[in-house]
Parts: sequence; C-alpha cells; structure tokens
Amino acid sequence: MRDVAVVGIGIMKWGELWEKSFRDIFAEAALNALDDAGVDKIDSLIVGCMTGGLFVGQEHVGAVMADYIGQKYIPAAHVESACASGGLAFRQAYIEVASGLSDIVMAGGVEKMTDVSGDGATYALATAADQDYEVFHGVTFPGLYAMMARTYMKKYKATRQQLSAVPFKNHQNGMKNPYAQYPFPIKLEDVENGVLVADPLHILDCSPITDGAAAVILTTVDIAKKLKKPIIKIIGSGMATDTLALHQRESTTWLKSTELAGQRALKMAGKKLDDINLVEVHDCFSIAEIIVTESLGFFKPGMGAKAAADGVTALDGKIPVNTSGGLKSKGHPVGATGIGQIVEIVKQLRGEAENGRQLKGSPKVGMTQNMGGSGASAVVHILEVA
Amino acid sequence: MRDVAVVGIGIMKWGELWEKSFRDIFAEAALNALDDAGVDKIDSLIVGCMTGGLFVGQEHVGAVMADYIGQKYIPAAHVESACASGGLAFRQAYIEVASGLSDIVMAGGVEKMTDVSGDGATYALATAADQDYEVFHGVTFPGLYAMMARTYMKKYKATRQQLSAVPFKNHQNGMKNPYAQYPFPIKLEDVENGVLVADPLHILDCSPITDGAAAVILTTVDIAKKLKKPIIKIIGSGMATDTLALHQRESTTWLKSTELAGQRALKMAGKKLDDINLVEVHDCFSIAEIIVTESLGFFKPGMGAKAAADGVTALDGKIPVNTSGGLKSKGHPVGATGIGQIVEIVKQLRGEAENGRQLKGSPKVGMTQNMGGSGASAVVHILEVA
Repeated sequence: MRDVAVVGIGIMKWGELWEKSFRDIFAEAALNALDDAGVDKIDSLIVGCMTGGLFVGQEHVGAVMADYIGQKYIPAAHVESACASGGLAFRQAYIEVASGLSDIVMAGGVEKMTDVSGDGATYALATAADQDYEVFHGVTFPGLYAMMARTYMKKYKATRQQLSAVPFKNHQNGMKNPYAQYPFPIKLEDVENGVLVADPLHILDCSPITDGAAAVILTTVDIAKKLKKPIIKIIGSGMATDTLALHQRESTTWLKSTELAGQRALKMAGKKLDDINLVEVHDCFSIAEIIVTESLGFFKPGMGAKAAADGVTALDGKIPVNTSGGLKSKGHPVGATGIGQIVEIVKQLRGEAENGRQLKGSPKVGMTQNMGGSGASAVVHILEVA
Repeated sequence: MRDVAVVGIGIMKWGELWEKSFRDIFAEAALNALDDAGVDKIDSLIVGCMTGGLFVGQEHVGAVMADYIGQKYIPAAHVESACASGGLAFRQAYIEVASGLSDIVMAGGVEKMTDVSGDGATYALATAADQDYEVFHGVTFPGLYAMMARTYMKKYKATRQQLSAVPFKNHQNGMKNPYAQYPFPIKLEDVENGVLVADPLHILDCSPITDGAAAVILTTVDIAKKLKKPIIKIIGSGMATDTLALHQRESTTWLKSTELAGQRALKMAGKKLDDINLVEVHDCFSIAEIIVTESLGFFKPGMGAKAAADGVTALDGKIPVNTSGGLKSKGHPVGATGIGQIVEIVKQLRGEAENGRQLKGSPKVGMTQNMGGSGASAVVHILEVA
C-alpha cells in the first residue's frame, strides 16, 4: 500500500443554512479544500452522506456533487454508515489512493438537515437504528443514549455534574471555532437546567440538527512533496461494526465497535495510545463522549465521566478531546461530521487552529473517532505530521 | 495493485417477495455466495443499495447486513450510485482487495422495493434524477427515457419494432434463468400492444419493480488458487459520471459516462472490444440497451436498434447481450442489479449458466455495464477466465 497524506482541507460555517442548497454547501467546502491543496483537478470523489433521499429527496449524491464542483466525468461514489458516513468516506478515499488506482482523491461529507420534508429529521435519523427491532417500536436516538446514560450513571455512580462537564468543555472549545454552529460558552449548570429531552439527557446534552459540509484532499506522500503543502500522513485506519440494536449487545456502557476500530487503527499505525496528542470523538450526546473515551482506552471503564469533570480532556488537559467544539458546539451535519473531525486534526497538526484553541507543544499525532447510530459502526483514523 | 478474482457467487429468486424482509433477502444471497466460495469468514463487506431509507426506513445498511450474515464486528460499508450501486459496490470491493488492506471481501447488492411506504417507489427512484432541475418539475424516469427514445427514433429513423426486439430478446434469455422475476417469453407484438407508459415506451419496454439481492466474494488470485475454485479474474474496472440532468448533456442519444467507463475498463484490462465474448448491460428501458451498446462501441451511433432487431445481440449472435434476461426479464432490484450482472458473467465464464442459455465456445472474457439514473453514473467491469 502506498503512503497517503492529507494535503488540503475545506470547511464552511455550519448551522441552519436556509439560503443554501444541499449542493451549494458541499461545493463551498469542496472548493475550499481544492484551494487549500492548490490543485484544480481530482481523479475521484467519495462523498459521505447519511440520507440525501430522506432529507432532501436527492440520492445519486456522488455524481451530482462531482458535477457541481466542476469535476464532471470523474468516478464518484457516495458512501453511508449513518453518522459515520464522513469517516467512511475518508477511509474509502484512503484505500483508493493507497491501492494505486487514483492519485488525488477528494473525501467529502455533507448533510442538509433543516429543511427536511416528509416524516421529519427524527424519522430520517432513526433509519440508523434497527427498523425492525427498535424504530418500529418507537425508540429514538435520544431515548437510546438516555438508556446508556442511565445505566452508566447507576453502574459507576457517575453524577449529573460529571455528564454536564462534556458539553461545557466542548462549548469552551467551540467558542473559539469560527465555523461552529454554536460558537458560544455555556455554564455548567445550564445543562441540567435545560429542557429535558429523554431523562437523564437535557437539551444541552444533545448535538444539534445542522446543515454543513467538509472536504479534504488525499494524495500520495510523493505527490504531496511536490505540492509543497504541509504533509499530514494517514498512518492508521480502522473500522468495525456491531449489532444495530442496542439490546442485542453484551453491554450498553461499552462500544465494542469503537474499541475494535481503535485497536485496528493503532495496530496499523504502529502506535500506542500514549502517542496520541489529541482526539476528536463522536459526542452526539454527552454520554457518548464519555463511553467513547473509555472504549478507545484513554480511561478505565467508569472513569471517563470523572476525567471530563476533572479537566483531563480540556484544551490544556492531558489528552485534549474535541478541540473543535465537537458535535455539540460545532454542529452535527451527520454525513459531514467525520470529515469535519479530520479538518480539525489537520489544523492542529499544522498549527493552524484559530482563536487560541491551537494546542501548545506542536502536537504530532492526532486521532479521530466517528460512529454511526448507537455505535453499530465506528471508524477511527490516526494522522501524523510527516 | 494485487490481482483480484471472484471466487463465489450467490443469488436468489427475484420478484415480489412479500414474505421476506430487506435483511432476509440479502442474507439469502450472501450465504449462497459464502457457500459457493467455500469460505465462512470475510474481512470486509461492501453493500450496494440505492435507498434503504426511502424504500424500507433502514439506512446503516452495511452494519445491519454484516450482523445478519453472521459477520458481526467486520468493517462494512454501504455505497450508492442510484441504479449503479451494485456495480459501485463491486468496484469498491475490488479496490479494497487490490490495495492489500483486506484479503476476502464480499460485494453485495440489495433492494426491497415492493412494500415501499411514504411517497412510493416512483418518488424513491426519482431521487436518482436531478431534484432541483428535473424531479421538482415533475419528470420521472419513464419520461426521461421516453425523451431519449423519441429523439433516437427521429434522429436515426429507428422503428417501433426495432425497439421491441430488445425486450423480446431479453425475455427469450430470461425464460432460461431460474432466478428471474419474469422467466417467460413474450411475443414481439406484445411490446407495442402493451399499456403506454410514456410515449413511445410501453409497459414491456420498462424494467419492473423488484425485491432481490445478489452477492459475490472477491479475493486475491493467490488465495483463490488455495480455495480450488474456478478463478475468474477482474481485469478492468472503469467508472465515470455525467450531469444528473439530461438536458445539461451534449446529447440525449449518447451516454458519455458509459463511453468513458468502458474505455477506462478496457484500458486497464489491456483489451479491445473484439476480445469481449459477452456483455451484461443496463436495460432499464429498451432504449437504454440500444444506446448503451452504441456508447460502449459495439455498434456505430444509430446502429444499435438495427443490431438488436437483426439478432446480433441474441444468445447465438455475434455479441450476446444480457444472456441473463437483463433487467427486463430478470428484474431490477436497483441496488442488486450490478452484482446480478457479475453473477451472470461468472456463470457464463465458468460454463455454469442454466437451462441452455450457456454460451457455446467457452467464453473467456465478459463485460458488465451498470448505470445510475438516466446515465449520470456508469460502472464497467471486465472479467476473464484465469
């Protein structure tokens, strides 16, 4: 397999983008990525999107986006793994460049969620859960994660305030991210005082509905050198799946797919967890970030909530988590989220993170963890400054 | 890139499968493929499906299918390129094995179309066309292909009877395929006497709504030798896109994406068209098969209709097209169609085609052409007996 690097990143302001269409928002991020890489032609495009069909009545997403970014006639694929669609797009693009088939590939992600018609955003998102054994019976994602949170709190005696520390910390980071949907701080007590969504989860425990896109350019390390761009190498890629239905798993306070994806990525990279300087994880709900950091191995089971409350995952903590603001503050346009994570890691490794959220001490190795549904799929990548 | 072969094929009876669920039909085809290959564990799964979200309320298709075929925890991806989703799945699986990342990968395709809820199958299929510039204004796929047919007939003075020759020939082949949805012959005059769908296309010019799945197992040629299975090598893979909207193309009687995908596959394979012994093409409508055979280069522009009428594409013709019965007789479960084409080519190259439709003279090289929408994406593969 050839060595592959990220040489261009593109993002745009995420939020409720009523004045911009599905293809508009993708094109904005994609053209930013091309500009950043200094290339005007790509060999292939991979787009992560959860369900253009349900959100905006548009499938055939690869072809439409290839045309709208001025790259008509190239091969273009749309990939889906629910909220991990962006991470999957990055993985498929990595494989395509590593294989030798294509030299310059764009991995993008996009979702236009706010002007959904038909049965609405909650129905569209619920297609990531098990239609036969969960959704049909009325469960939604806030309900599933609430059950995980309730079990976790009982099992490990975790407190409401410990849970609140996750969104509090992510808004502290996101207020420094000019592309975030909610770039403002919240108070710790705001979380438990917010509207109850699914007990014990309140509104600020939950990531928002977002329109947004992100894109990155992958190429071989050899070509990257000629482009004279900072070379951020992809040294590990791991993916794993699990049962869709939460009740079919051995534990509801552990994410086996995240554990396996992390181990596979570390093995490929030849790294240990101690080598990782920062990580972007999938905090679709506050409890998700806690269980993910444990399943990746950063903290022992039951210690993730305490670690967040103690500041271990803060910008100046031992292992900074979600320096971008995470899904909570930055927004969660589901298909774009995994690519947004890569954008943040590349910025941090280049030393380009905005507004004082750049980590001190020149981070060298970053990790992303993107997951689908209640954890039925997970994609982990490890990037390193070359 | 490593040499890759198909070592297992699995299909099931396509049709209106009211008694079987989305995951049931995929599992049936997938387990048949595993049995055929003689393997019980795969490294990775790629599933082509156009829109599980709109048809059955289920996305996260890779993860759910990995679990239901007994392969929990593996990496699993769902890919989409409208009706070319199956061909795309095969291409992505090929790239993954060729890259060296995975040794044994299943490429599958599935669609459960008949028990669609919400806005119905026509709306779901229309998401393959341009939502902003076509669908919103009321055009559907029979309408788009009717415009292509009308223009073709006027431009080349093609006759109604020449168009009818395509479904007539495909039912002649499909009556010999035990897995076909409509395994019976039709009379040439049945086509023009059928219900008018979109002038000049009658009901028998159109492929049906189908529930179905297919799956194949890809591995390296080295591993294939150890499995002691017939080795059918993948020697060419080409993909191309075009504008989604038909009116934005230079010609409505030519499929540029098919032309480019074919050229790219032939170039990779180091073959000429004369080397191809048979081809499975995307006859979603009678006119589609005609324009596709021309765009691939088998016939000069305007000569495809005459060739079909003259029997050049029949089972005993110079270049047999759709020996399986094609989408018309075999059925068109959109995400599965591209994998179904691979299954037929592998059967023919192994000499295993059922009921007297096996080509004489031991065919050595076969081609598949799978396309999305009105041709905004096309995937071409070339397979050869090793």
